[in-house]
Amino acid sequence: MNILVLGGDGYLGWPTALHLSARGHRVTIVDNLVRREYDREMGVDSLVPIAPLDERVKKWKEVSGRQIDLRIGNLTDAAFTYAAVADSKPEAIVHFGEQRSAPYSMIDREHAVYTQVNNVVGTLNVMYAIAELDPTIHLVKLGTMGEYGYPNIDIEEGFIEITHKGRTDVLPYPKQPGSFYHLSKVHDSANIMFACRVWGLRSTDLNQGIVYGQSTDETDLDPALGTRFDYDAVFGTVLNRFCVQAVMGHPLTVYGAGGQTRGMLNVRDTLACVTLALENPAEAGEFRVFNQFTESFSVRDMADMVKQASSRPVEIASGLANPRVEREEHYFNAANTKLLDLGLEPHLLTQAVIKDMLELVERHRARVDTDAIAPTVQWRLSASTLKTGDASTEASFLEV
Amino acid sequence: MNILVLGGDGYLGWPTALHLSARGHRVTIVDNLVRREYDREMGVDSLVPIAPLDERVKKWKEVSGRQIDLRIGNLTDAAFTYAAVADSKPEAIVHFGEQRSAPYSMIDREHAVYTQVNNVVGTLNVMYAIAELDPTIHLVKLGTMGEYGYPNIDIEEGFIEITHKGRTDVLPYPKQPGSFYHLSKVHDSANIMFACRVWGLRSTDLNQGIVYGQSTDETDLDPALGTRFDYDAVFGTVLNRFCVQAVMGHPLTVYGAGGQTRGMLNVRDTLACVTLALENPAEAGEFRVFNQFTESFSVRDMADMVKQASSRPVEIASGLANPRVEREEHYFNAANTKLLDLGLEPHLLTQAVIKDMLELVERHRARVDTDAIAPTVQWRLSASTLKTGDASTEASFLEV
Repeated sequence: MNILVLGGDGYLGWPTALHLSARGHRVTIVDNLVRREYDREMGVDSLVPIAPLDERVKKWKEVSGRQIDLRIGNLTDAAFTYAAVADSKPEAIVHFGEQRSAPYSMIDREHAVYTQVNNVVGTLNVMYAIAELDPTIHLVKLGTMGEYGYPNIDIEEGFIEITHKGRTDVLPYPKQPGSFYHLSKVHDSANIMFACRVWGLRSTDLNQGIVYGQSTDETDLDPALGTRFDYDAVFGTVLNRFCVQAVMGHPLTVYGAGGQTRGMLNVRDTLACVTLALENPAEAGEFRVFNQFTESFSVRDMADMVKQASSRPVEIASGLANPRVEREEHYFNAANTKLLDLGLEPHLLTQAVIKDMLELVERHRARVDTDAIAPTVQWRLSASTLKTGDASTEASFLEV
Repeated sequence: MNILVLGGDGYLGWPTALHLSARGHRVTIVDNLVRREYDREMGVDSLVPIAPLDERVKKWKEVSGRQIDLRIGNLTDAAFTYAAVADSKPEAIVHFGEQRSAPYSMIDREHAVYTQVNNVVGTLNVMYAIAELDPTIHLVKLGTMGEYGYPNIDIEEGFIEITHKGRTDVLPYPKQPGSFYHLSKVHDSANIMFACRVWGLRSTDLNQGIVYGQSTDETDLDPALGTRFDYDAVFGTVLNRFCVQAVMGHPLTVYGAGGQTRGMLNVRDTLACVTLALENPAEAGEFRVFNQFTESFSVRDMADMVKQASSRPVEIASGLANPRVEREEHYFNAANTKLLDLGLEPHLLTQAVIKDMLELVERHRARVDTDAIAPTVQWRLSASTLKTGDASTEASFLEV
């Protein structure tokens, strides 16, 4: 299959591009390299060193004999996006090409506006390029489980049957996203759903959980093929942070009550899920939603698992001030059967997997910047600005 | 009360500004005059001549003795938006300042992107200005009943209690918007709901039906105070179009089956609803949604009512090709009690009201451009582009 991978220089885009290439698909990576810019802006870096994109691609050719093509440019530039689609003539587009950090989107007005414009306009351009150049192209779009928020009922895969006052309909699942980043993904999903309905596009929306792990069959072939490992406060994820803290002998920092429960998956399963979606495409006019995670854990659970896996003694610092406004104890039961039905065989978060992550951190411990770990972005207004929106009003909103 | 009216040069913003001024509120209009630009771009004009904004404001001073302040600029320019809020120190902001035509948003990629960026970024800037300058400001935001789409269950006001697999929660009502314009309003609502939750902002989202009528107590005081009457294919609404067609002796054009049913209200009720929302503000941290319409009619009903009100014989041309992709026969039962509970006394769509509208068209018939009426914007891809998304795939999506 001829496939464009948008955002193919990122944490997941890169190993996905390699995996699809290894399976014999013809892959073109589209990226504007901005993920590397965010690191420079924030003054942080991946724990694992990342080769420049052209070197990575060259190394892949060397190691595998397979060619990955590159197009460097910005999806918000419609002329660039149309040319990428017109020239590559893909049968499918995998779209990782968005700003994907919730804290980054919450830094200030500029970052909120940047995130929503970058993500929404980039995706609109991709949708229009597909519609006008070849509406049979299958758009596989990365969304997030965070689009749903944390309702007090089971989360379904994109749609829910509602019976109300004696009538029944199947409607889009209500969304309660928790940052301007998560909101941008909700906006995208709504835009794409509409395009499938009125233009007959075919799309799969992958509502992905939090991905962990840095090892795949392809990236393991050479150090220059490695993908990112982010542990900083803005782009890092909680499990990576805990692993770094454990190795560095710092207490694991649990913000808030620690009952925040998240769907999670191994990076290997991301690759498998995207591949399953591509190789079993949506029908013309179909907008389908897959919840892409394999297990769920609370932040507390993750801290305990890291503590258990660590060969050194580990302290857990719990109940720290939470930089986010979120439910810290909540119901969470989300469906994830559609990808399993297509044949997904999950790699679970075992002690062995965590030990591998700890070992990875150990190997790169000289590169750890412990100053990058403490939260720098607050969801709440500062006390001086905020006259009325105290915790009690927030709580009352949440209970409505 | 000290009130900013964003989009105060538009069809509804202008009479709202006058009405609030007449009630003794101190009003500042913020507008970039782009509504007049859209007319020039489309080569159309309001049936009723519209005075330049500065002349209108001067005339209002003359007629009423009351001062309305003006700030000309673009809400997507954050420095401008912050300065408008900082200088005026409003207690409330009424936000009509968005591109509000569904067909305009569907012209092409550029217009879709323009509509979503203009509306979403303008609103983000307003939200941030409120949050950073004075979070007690009440944001009264104009949304649309079209955000809900046409589900097969009753439409509630913003939220719905869902019982699912034995558990119950109150969640945002699922949205199924029908154009990139309607989608922009859905994006806005989601962004504002989030800001109320995390920042404690207070906001009222007015999901408004289709507004008709051109006469208010204030605009009737002088011809120079008149507001717009749009009947063209892009910015016009169906009842206005039918009135123009009846007066000009053209058949009333019913697109599709004509069972498309819409909530509607008189412009006088828009003014009353906005006033009720302002004078009974949301609590700190509260995001409340009012469905702002008084009656509902199908397109077929409206054609019949205009035919009946007309003193000339009127022909109805039904079953014409529908430029939109929409359900043409559907269930529609939407709640609208919250504004009634606050004291709204509806002006209903009587034969007398339609006769007044016909008379208005008669007075301005020399200005009618009948070429402006036929639809120019298609929701569907053109046949040459569209390879697979035919009517049957659309129908199957709708029934899912």
